[in-house]
Parts: sequence; structure tokens; C-alpha cells
Amino acid sequence: MTQGTSIVGNGTGIGKTPFQETMDQVFLMTMALLIQLMQCGFAFLEVGCVRSKNVSSILMKTVLDAFVAGVAYWTVGYAFAYGEGNEFIGWNHFATSDLPSNKFAYFFYEFVIASTASTIVSGAVAERCEMVAYLVYSFVITGFIYPIVSRWAWSPFGWLYIGQEYMIDNSTVTIKYHDFAGSGVVHAVGGTASFFGALILGPRLGRFHPDSKDPLPMRGHSLTFASLGILILFIGFLAFNGGSQMSVSNPGDGDIISLAAVNTVLSAATCAYLTLIIHKIGILGRSWNVMFVVNGSLSGMVAICTGCDLLRPWAAIIVGAVTAVSFNFTAWLMWRLKIDDPVDAIAVHFGGGVWGTLSIAFLDYENGILRNWNYKSGLILGWQLAGILSIIAWTGVLSSIMFGLLKITGFFRVPEEIERKGLDVPKYGGPAYPLDAYGHGHVEKIPTVLENGELSCFSLGYINDSMKGTSDTGPYECPEIKAMNNMPVSFIPDVQLIVTPPEDGCLNRKNGQINPGFVCAFERTAL
Amino acid sequence: MTQGTSIVGNGTGIGKTPFQETMDQVFLMTMALLIQLMQCGFAFLEVGCVRSKNVSSILMKTVLDAFVAGVAYWTVGYAFAYGEGNEFIGWNHFATSDLPSNKFAYFFYEFVIASTASTIVSGAVAERCEMVAYLVYSFVITGFIYPIVSRWAWSPFGWLYIGQEYMIDNSTVTIKYHDFAGSGVVHAVGGTASFFGALILGPRLGRFHPDSKDPLPMRGHSLTFASLGILILFIGFLAFNGGSQMSVSNPGDGDIISLAAVNTVLSAATCAYLTLIIHKIGILGRSWNVMFVVNGSLSGMVAICTGCDLLRPWAAIIVGAVTAVSFNFTAWLMWRLKIDDPVDAIAVHFGGGVWGTLSIAFLDYENGILRNWNYKSGLILGWQLAGILSIIAWTGVLSSIMFGLLKITGFFRVPEEIERKGLDVPKYGGPAYPLDAYGHGHVEKIPTVLENGELSCFSLGYINDSMKGTSDTGPYECPEIKAMNNMPVSFIPDVQLIVTPPEDGCLNRKNGQINPGFVCAFERTAL
Amino acid sequence: MTQGTSIVGNGTGIGKTPFQETMDQVFLMTMALLIQLMQCGFAFLEVGCVRSKNVSSILMKTVLDAFVAGVAYWTVGYAFAYGEGNEFIGWNHFATSDLPSNKFAYFFYEFVIASTASTIVSGAVAERCEMVAYLVYSFVITGFIYPIVSRWAWSPFGWLYIGQEYMIDNSTVTIKYHDFAGSGVVHAVGGTASFFGALILGPRLGRFHPDSKDPLPMRGHSLTFASLGILILFIGFLAFNGGSQMSVSNPGDGDIISLAAVNTVLSAATCAYLTLIIHKIGILGRSWNVMFVVNGSLSGMVAICTGCDLLRPWAAIIVGAVTAVSFNFTAWLMWRLKIDDPVDAIAVHFGGGVWGTLSIAFLDYENGILRNWNYKSGLILGWQLAGILSIIAWTGVLSSIMFGLLKITGFFRVPEEIERKGLDVPKYGGPAYPLDAYGHGHVEKIPTVLENGELSCFSLGYINDSMKGTSDTGPYECPEIKAMNNMPVSFIPDVQLIVTPPEDGCLNRKNGQINPGFVCAFERTAL
Repeated sequence: MTQGTSIVGNGTGIGKTPFQETMDQVFLMTMALLIQLMQCGFAFLEVGCVRSKNVSSILMKTVLDAFVAGVAYWTVGYAFAYGEGNEFIGWNHFATSDLPSNKFAYFFYEFVIASTASTIVSGAVAERCEMVAYLVYSFVITGFIYPIVSRWAWSPFGWLYIGQEYMIDNSTVTIKYHDFAGSGVVHAVGGTASFFGALILGPRLGRFHPDSKDPLPMRGHSLTFASLGILILFIGFLAFNGGSQMSVSNPGDGDIISLAAVNTVLSAATCAYLTLIIHKIGILGRSWNVMFVVNGSLSGMVAICTGCDLLRPWAAIIVGAVTAVSFNFTAWLMWRLKIDDPVDAIAVHFGGGVWGTLSIAFLDYENGILRNWNYKSGLILGWQLAGILSIIAWTGVLSSIMFGLLKITGFFRVPEEIERKGLDVPKYGGPAYPLDAYGHGHVEKIPTVLENGELSCFSLGYINDSMKGTSDTGPYECPEIKAMNNMPVSFIPDVQLIVTPPEDGCLNRKNGQINPGFVCAFERTAL
Repeated sequence: MTQGTSIVGNGTGIGKTPFQETMDQVFLMTMALLIQLMQCGFAFLEVGCVRSKNVSSILMKTVLDAFVAGVAYWTVGYAFAYGEGNEFIGWNHFATSDLPSNKFAYFFYEFVIASTASTIVSGAVAERCEMVAYLVYSFVITGFIYPIVSRWAWSPFGWLYIGQEYMIDNSTVTIKYHDFAGSGVVHAVGGTASFFGALILGPRLGRFHPDSKDPLPMRGHSLTFASLGILILFIGFLAFNGGSQMSVSNPGDGDIISLAAVNTVLSAATCAYLTLIIHKIGILGRSWNVMFVVNGSLSGMVAICTGCDLLRPWAAIIVGAVTAVSFNFTAWLMWRLKIDDPVDAIAVHFGGGVWGTLSIAFLDYENGILRNWNYKSGLILGWQLAGILSIIAWTGVLSSIMFGLLKITGFFRVPEEIERKGLDVPKYGGPAYPLDAYGHGHVEKIPTVLENGELSCFSLGYINDSMKGTSDTGPYECPEIKAMNNMPVSFIPDVQLIVTPPEDGCLNRKNGQINPGFVCAFERTAL
Repeated sequence: MTQGTSIVGNGTGIGKTPFQETMDQVFLMTMALLIQLMQCGFAFLEVGCVRSKNVSSILMKTVLDAFVAGVAYWTVGYAFAYGEGNEFIGWNHFATSDLPSNKFAYFFYEFVIASTASTIVSGAVAERCEMVAYLVYSFVITGFIYPIVSRWAWSPFGWLYIGQEYMIDNSTVTIKYHDFAGSGVVHAVGGTASFFGALILGPRLGRFHPDSKDPLPMRGHSLTFASLGILILFIGFLAFNGGSQMSVSNPGDGDIISLAAVNTVLSAATCAYLTLIIHKIGILGRSWNVMFVVNGSLSGMVAICTGCDLLRPWAAIIVGAVTAVSFNFTAWLMWRLKIDDPVDAIAVHFGGGVWGTLSIAFLDYENGILRNWNYKSGLILGWQLAGILSIIAWTGVLSSIMFGLLKITGFFRVPEEIERKGLDVPKYGGPAYPLDAYGHGHVEKIPTVLENGELSCFSLGYINDSMKGTSDTGPYECPEIKAMNNMPVSFIPDVQLIVTPPEDGCLNRKNGQINPGFVCAFERTAL
């Protein structure tokens, strides 16, 4: 976002034609719409990672998230981040008042990014957090904590953006914090807040053994949703990293946009593969599953954010490789510390973000420590360190206070019984998959091959109305079944039909064969 | 779409460079692709809102929708809407004949929008409508009903677009209908057709109590799909509202595109929050769930369509707030009128669309009644009223005739038995979630903590072939189970294994503990 | 992609302003991000088409696919395809070394397309393929097989791209292979590799009757995922076909981008409808379901890729109509040949791709055989035939060798027991839908109407902790149930509660009615 000056600091767009200015705006808007896919992606990911009893709760959170962020960022967040003010905070354009009309594209882009920071946290506190707590922390993060950090690093007024002048080899050089697409500004903020949220909230009931404190498996209800989430997130990340150039009217903009995307692919791929290998060979002693690879690729995308505009592709591969260590170590550490993070958000965003922020100090071609260990590269590392430590300290202190207050006032965690039974029914108006919405009135005939090679058929079906009309309490004759298989049928009226096959199997009247097995799980149809 | 003239009426693009004309086309195409996400979004939303027995039917409808719209709009719709003709209808460019090649982008954009109008209806008639009826009404709406409305309001030839000249303060002023992104043109059309569709079709069996006529709960099978749908729809709406500028080559285009998006976020957010509050405190006496918040945000997006290009952000918040009333009242009214709308499409699109169309007459900064109650603002209200009433009347009459004819000819509603049992098996080739596609051959060992604090394990699993090979009718010894827990096992051959624990619990051989509970729901694996 | 020269062959962009060059890059990047939606779409489609026991496996494959392609295409694929070299292969820019920074957008676009070719295959070999085989073939296809084909047809150095000069009517005319968006280059490659993959791998266990060899139904676990996949794929295809223009800076670029999209809609729609009719009237004797329509629309998109830039809309409709025959015949043929393709990838991509490649020779307005049967149109057909046959031969030979080697070395297919039980548990770390992640601790009260018209209620619920605390082995009194219905309850401690209603029904204490039916399927909640 270092090129953001052309938009933020220089609204007159000197030297640009009106058409070029419009195309800058259109680029920002198009990328913002694609970045908005990250909201879908995180929603899929988080939904898949919770148990079915808490699905409505996470859905409510993800649906409201963009709206909480919209209101918070509009009313105060943008003013704190990009309004006129000092190096630490801005204080005009509250509620977009007096914002020039050509800045709305920039505002919208920044809003979309701000909403990402708070979405990260909702995964870490899933399955036990009160909705009111969610609304509060989401507002505070997108309205205050995150905007201040982006003030420092991305606003042309910010102290990390301005940096400092040094005399190096008899010439004056400005060294400053560089974070192109927010490994530190977005992801370390989200990861730090996730850490303190999960820490203060405590683990889910049953996540760790009450005595031995060993972790017990607590898997999400749908790997499908979680994995599809990552595929959608991938597009959002590519748009985020390319879009961070924030301009298409300066020569070379296109080069950086595309370099950023290529680096993102390479870092994510490398981290995904290495995570796969780490877990397949069992280095960290945790059983593996697809979620590790999903999260590994995600952390590779997080880490490359800082340097995707300037690192060469081979360096992006190194970034991804180190991220595999950083991500998996952080995940392992959380597990050892008994911090329960249902979606591994801390490992992905903190583990990936912190390393990513530092990575350019080592891997930049011209000024990286790897190739040029000198005073200048040391200063760069110093500024990256100063930036990331300030971000962690700021976010950590404020989020600890916020989550601590929520805990003390009793608004943070749902009562134990509700957590145990699930949040959806008492808090969110019902389960995500209501039992009465399933089943149908037809008998499904499932072909099966008998041991003598004959093709037979068994049936699974449900009671339907025509059957109900002729039934009452007691043994029941199911015409559709009886026609095919001669067998006694016991019946729980109105609802459930249990077919017990005779000991010698059932006669299949269609082909005269004895069908050696049969089950008929009849369930009630919705009226 | 008021700027559409630059593309529709002025194909020569005077004053634009060829490159600028190309960028206009590329902008239209890019936004159209993102608007196409609304088809995905509506599909997710509608799928989630139906019961599992009708999922295949709604999927077929959503998959075919874009294609019905494509063919209908290509053959006749576009000609009626944008061909040369009079103020009410056009009549050339049927099947894109003689359409200049630089108008295809415009055609494609309009097609994508047209397909949205008919998609709205499929939700309102879900779970009981015949497929042939769907194909017919979808063709009629995208081929005729909607194109005529867009002729009036968006074609430079249309009577609502042309408006009328008035003498105000001694100067001639043209007042006309304004509907930037279609609260009236798209959503009120879809909402009105939905109303008459649902009214003439009648409620689903069992939706209302046969005697008391009280509504009975009839929830969709997956809140997850429905909620993910809204997140995808959100992106589509942002593209729709921004893309309605339809040009990037005029100075200021970028400003309006981004203002439209910001207003969309604020209106949707406000309406979602107020809907949440209305239902949490129970004003309308209906039990709440996540779907209300989902639909509330959607109706906020619908209502802001008309004025998102000119309202100031604070006005967008008011639009959203009033929409919360309008949407929830319409939903409540449908419920009182015994009109069964499985996805609340009428409340969202009619309730949101009608208010949205009128909103600018009150809330426009320069000419709104709220700030300037005078002759001019009265005329603006008059034109907005004339527009929305004409749209409702036109759509209402034609869709009543169409749905009435479908009903009379018996093509509208599936037979009662099929509705009761579900449409998927007899009409759509099978269930969406076939029972024989579920289950696997492995025993899942689920850890559990005993009351004495010991970690134990119980198993859920399925029969597999190797087990089947050694079994026959009668008591069965399941080796995997027996190895772990010593217990009697009764067995329904080939298919289902029911494990009954002894009264004193089962000995867990691994740790010598008595495991006080055990169930083993073995199901058949697919061959 | 015929206009690709302006980017590939002419990096200096003579005659273009730097801003125009940037906009070309931005267009490529934006379309590439939308094409990346095809990865999501294919993932949804393939996940829906497999059984639940193999869902984790297909998810792992789809998540890794973009990353395999990224690494393979970056290291070698791009060099083979677009590096300097001869007519058949290129050999510089390995690992993007020495690639000018303004070519990265082009590289990224090509990478996204390359990853599509290998994704196609993963559907055809689903449910039985080893992961290592997947990684190998995916790398080989995106790193070598596909790049060579794109070298021939899309690189300015390629023999199919260069074509040959002929004397026609005393003037020199260059005739060459035309394949705008890859019916041959992408889809025939994917389809051919799918064919040999599925052939060499053999059908899934139980797909065909062991004696009669008749196919047995083997449906996917979620039509919802599969259908939603097609809606996402549709957007990706539109971006692919429009984006293949690869430039926005030449006059007329916008016209071709939009014509391509319109043709894509018309071809897909026609093919979907005809497929619906073919299966509804049962021409091919296979039972129909929604998947045929989904795949029919997809094959219509595949076939139009070659000519979407030059065919007139009526010709696109003919392309779609013939594709319906080509797709359904290929599907029928695979079924007769006992080649098991779980997602019908061969029928879609080979059946659609081969016909699509040839279609322009017949249907081009100026030079198509349909309107002008002469020497020139014959030569065009000849070149299209030469192209598609070369592609099939190249892909067929190499993929046969590759899949053959994988088979011989035993890395291709999972062991029989694992296939039977499902790949997820032993190979991919667990099931996609773990049983212990489902259920909750609340009793769901489901209203039902009694035969006397009274509204009653039955309950489905799960054991919860408070109940567990008071229970032990033996009959159990469930307070929530007892309060409502007076009935005996038998209890399997800790886990499952089975409620057996008395013969005369249960007294509903709330309204004094006898509730004639009752079931209470209590399942264990996760701790």
C-alpha cells in the first residue's frame, strides 16, 4: 500500500487525467468486491470447523460481520485511520463527513479490509462466545484497534509510514516500515486479538481432558464447507495482495499487481506442501487431517502479504517454507498452552503474520540480510521489528482490556449448560439443520448384489400419508414393502417403522430369490 | 442507470476515445460477471430454505434460470426493452439481429439483470410448483413483463425515463422517474410476480393449521446454505449497484460507483440490525431466527437500489431503517394473509422495493421532501409514485393472468401426493442426498471421559465387507468391537448391527474400566 | 487467444501508452481471478459427485490442485509453452527467470488456465485414486503435457499458431488452427487424459454388475454441492471466454469480449435444454437426473470455447445443439465401454471439446462449410482436424504412458479394502462429516396435526448433561419428555434413549389429548 499516497495524500491527482483517476477508483472497487469474497471464504471455513449444534451461531456472526465493520468503520474507524491528525491518530471525516466524493472508492476499499481483521477473531472464539460480546469486540476492533494500526503503517501521516532518515554511506536514506498487504497490519492484529480472546475466554468444555489436560478430538461438522472456504479465500487473497497497489495509473502498477499474485501462489503452495509433509511424517505428534493443509496454505498467503510486491519468486518460496514452520509451531504451541482455537486462527494469522512482516528484512533482493548483511539491512530489520512489536503490544493491551471487561461483566461466555447443549436452539432461533426438514415420503430402492451374484434390492424409505391413512397402533402391513418382500413388520404408529427380517431372510417376490438382508428405516415425513 | 444514454442512445460515443469505449464495455462485462454471483447467491438462499425432499427441484430451477433468461432475453426481451419503437415497447434487434457489435456488452449486462427478476419468483413458489410452470413464467417474465418495465424506466425512449417538463420558479425543469439500480424496475417486478404466484398457487400443505389457520413451523433444511447465499448475494448487489453507472469514461463515474457501494453497505447494515432488534424483542410476535437477519440485510440492499447514486450516507441509513419496518411488516402481513412464501421473497423484494423507489422523493439532499417540501419535491414524489404504481399494475395484471392460466390448465401445482412425499424422487430423478451415498466401512472411535475421569472410547461404525464375509443370521461377533469391549451383539444380517450393552456396562479391555455406555450404529456400506 | 501476440510476442507494446499496457495487465489479472472461480466450481461439482466416504479425499485434491499447478507451471510449464525455442517446445524462463516484469500478468493468467486442465482429470479418477498418483499426474499435465499443446496453438512460435500459406484464388492466404478459449487446447487435453486415466484405473468397485456388467447406480452424496458448482463454474467460463481476448487496448477488444460471453450463454443454454429433453423422453435409455442437465450446460460452455470470438449468436445455438448430441453420446458410450467416470468429465470435456474445435470450420459466417463449401473452408476444417488429432494423440500417448507406469508401480489405485470402506479415514485423516460433530443437547419439539385436527407435538432430541447426571443403568425418567407425555422410557445409559409409546398412545399433558405417535431418538452429545 506504499503507493497509496497517490490517492490518499494527493487527492488532486496531479498529472493524471480524469479518466485515469476514474480507472484508479474502478480498480479499487473491483478489487474490493473480490476481496469481499474473503468474507464468504472465512464464513465457509468457520462454519465447517464448528459442530452442528453451533452452526447458526457462527452463521449469524459471519452475516453480521460485514455490517458491524461497515457501521464501525464508517462512523469512526476511517476518521481515526485516514483523517487529518497526528502520527498516531486522525480526527476528521467521521461518518464520511466532508469526505471528497473521489475518496469514497478508497474508503470502501479500506472498509472491506477492516472487516477482514475482525472476522479472523470470530473463528478463535467460536462455540462459546456470547453474541453481544461478538458485537462489542467486532465494533471495537474495526472502529478503533485496527484503524490506529493502519494509521501508523498505511496513512501518509503515520509514524511507521514516515519512518526516519539515516546517514548511510554519506547519503541520506529514509528507512521505514514496509507492509504491502498487511501481514502485520491486518493479520497480526487479527491473530493477536484472537490469542487474547481465546486465552481469556478459555477452552471449550471437553476440549482438554479434565485431569491429564490432554487435548481431545473436537472436529468440525463439515470438512467440505471448510475446504470450499479456502478455495474462495484464495481468490480474495489474490485480489487483496494485487489490489494493495491501489492504483493502475502509474507506470509499473500492472507489473507489481501481477508479481504480487504470482508470489502469493508460490508462498501458499510451498507452505501447503510442507505442512502436508510435516503432518504426514508426524513431526509434531498430532494426527493429521485435511484441515492442516487448508490452514497451511492460508498461512502461506498471510505471510507473503508484506513482501509480495518486492520479493522475487524464489524468495516467496522461502517465505512459504518458513511459514510452514512458523504456522505449525504456533499451532503446536497453542495446543500445549491449552488455548483452544477451533479454527487455528492464531497459528494462521499470528504465526504467519509475524514471520511475514519480518521476512522482507531477510529476503529482499537489494537490501535483505540474506544477501547484504550491513547497516542498512539491519535498520530495515529494526523497523520491521519495531512495527510488528508495536502492533502486537497495542493490539494485545487493548484487546486484553476489552475481553477482560467482557469477562468480568459476564457478557463474554455463554452459560455452561448452553455451551454443552449447543448455542443454536436457545440463542439463535433454532438449529441450522432442523430434523423436521429432512426425509421424504418415497421408498428408495437400493440395488445390491447377492452372494450368488444375483441383483437384488433393498429399500430405505419413510412413512407417507397414504400409508398413515390405513395404519393404527400395532403390527402394520406396509404395502410397498410387502409387495416386494414378504416379512413381518413392526410399527411405531405415525412415525417409525422397523422391519425385522425373518431368520432365513426375506423372499424377494420379484425374482424369487431369498434376500438375506433387509432394513427399512422409516421415518416420519413432515406433514 | 441514468447515465446509460452514453451507451444506449449514443453508440457513436462522440468525444470518447476508442480505448475509453472499450473500457466502458470491459467495466460492464466485469460488473456483469460479478452480478452473475447473484444467481449463485439466490440458489444457495433458496436451496437452504426448502426441505430436503425438494432440494433437487429447486436446484434444477436455479441451474436452468440463467439459461431460460438467456434465451428469452436474447430472442425477444432485449428487443422489447431497448429496440427502436415507442415509449412503451421496442421492436427491433430480436435475437440480437443487426445489433452493433459494440452493444453486445450492454446486451450482456442487461441479460444478467433480467435473469435476476425471474430468479426472485422461484423462491416464492418453491416446494409445490411444476417445472413446466417454472419454465413458462420464467420465459414470460424475462422475455416480456420485465423488458417492458425496463423500457419505460431505463431505455432513453421510455415514458418514465423521458419524464415531463414543468415550469418551476420561472424555469423549465424536467422531472422524471429515477431508479438507479432497480428497486422498482427489478425488485418490485420480482416481488409483485412473487405475490401473485404465491397467492394463486396457494400455501404448501401443512403450512397453516387446517382449522385454526395458524402458521406451523416449516423450516428449510440448511441455514448454512441460506446464510452463505446472502454473503455471495452481497457481492452481487454491490456490483449491481455500482455497475448501474454503466460507464467509466465520463468524469465523476468513479465517484458514483463508489458512493453506490458505500450506501449499499450502510442500508443493508441498518436494516439487518433493526430486524435483529425487532425480532429479539418480539414486536411482531413471531419467533425469530437467523433467516430474519439474513433477509433483513437483503431487503436493505433492495431498498437502496433506487437512490444509491445520489443519497448521502446518512440518508442511506434512514432508507435502511425504514426498510426494516417495511420488510418486517410485509412479512407479517403475508403471514396473516395466509400467503406462503418459503423464502420471504415478497417481503424482501416488494417490501423493500416499493419503499426504496419512493425513498429518494423524501431523502434526496437537494430535492427531498424531508429538507425541501415544495412543488418540485412533490412532483418528484408524484413521478416515483406513478412509476412504482405502473410497475405494480403492469406486473400484477400480467402475472395474475399468466399464473391463473397455469392454474386453470393444471400445469401450476404438483399433485398433492407428490407434494406431500416430496418432488425430487418422482419429478427430478432422485433425492439430492441419496441415502446410499452416505456412510463408510470404518469404525469411528470417539473418546469420552468417564465419570471417574478416565478417558474411554466408544465406537460408531458401519458394516464392512470383511465383517460381512464371516457373518450370517443370528448373534454376531464383531471383531473390532469385541477386541475393545466385551459385550453381546445382536445383528440384523448384512445391514444393521445393534449393540446392546449389558446392564452393568461393558468392560473396556484397554484400560480395564467399565464403560457405562455404548452404542454402535452399524449401517450398510454401499457395495 | 489469437490476439495474444500483442502481449507475448511484442513486449515493447509499440503504439500503446504505458497506461494502456497497464490496463491490459489489469484486465488479465481481473479475468484470471474470476477464472480462478472455476477451481471452486470444479471442487463443488466433484465433491457433490462422490460418496460421503471419499469426500475428504476429493477435497484434498481440489485444495492442492491450484498449488500443484502453480509450482509445476512456474518451474517448467511456462518455459515449455512460451519460452524461446522452436515450433514444438520452448526452453527459457524456467522458474520465471529473466521474465520481464510486465509479463507476470500474462504468466499468471496462463497459470490459472493450466491449472484447469489438470482439475478436469481429478473428477474422472475420483474415489479410487492414490494421492501420490494425483500429485504426479497433476504435475506432469500442468508441467509438460498441457504446456506443449499450448505451445503449438497459442504461442506465436507454435506450428498450429503459425499455420501455412496457401494460394487461394490467386492470393496468398494463411490458414491456421483457431482455438480462442481452448475447446481443444484445454478441454480436449483434460478430456483425453481423463479417458486414459479412467480406462487404466478401471471402474469403481460395484459400479458394474460382476456378471451382467450392467451399471449399478452409484450416486454422489450431494446434488446441492454439484449444482452450486455449476453456477460458480458458469462465471468462471464467462471470464475465461471473454478473457481469452487478453487485451483491452486494441480497438474492438471490447466487442469480442462481450460477443464471447453472449455466445457462451446461448450455447450452454441450448445444450442444457436439449439434454433435458433427451433424458426426459428417454432416448438413451438411462434414467435421468439433475446432474445430466448440469453437465449438459457445462459441455455447451466447453464446446463454444473455440469459436466464441467469431461465431454469430445463431451459430452458437447450433454449436450447443450439436454438443447435446456429442455430450450425451459420449456419456452413453463410456457407459457401454464400462469406463467409470464419476463426474462425466470425459463426456463433458472430450465430447464437448472435440466437436467445439471442429465447429468453426462448419459454422463460421465467412468461411464455414455450411455457407461456403470451397477449398478454403476445407483447408480450415483440415487444420482444425490436424490440431485436434495432434492434441489427442499427444495427450493420449503421454497420459497412457504416465498412467500405465503409475499402475505398474502400484501407485495408482488404493487397495480394495480401502476403496470399499472409503478413502477418508485411512488416508485423509478422517471423515468429512464426523459423526461426533453432529447432534445437540436440546429436545426439538415438532408440531404435528392429529387426525382429529388438534395440534400436537412430538419431540426429537438428545441426551444432555443434566439428564445424564441423574441417570444410571435401567429405566430412566426423562423429565422434559415426562412433563409432556406420560410414557415408559427405556434407556441405554449415557448414549441412547429409546422411547416406546404405550399401545394406546401417549397422553399429552399439555392439552389432555392422546398423542397417537411418538418417537424420541436420543443420541449422545459430544462432551
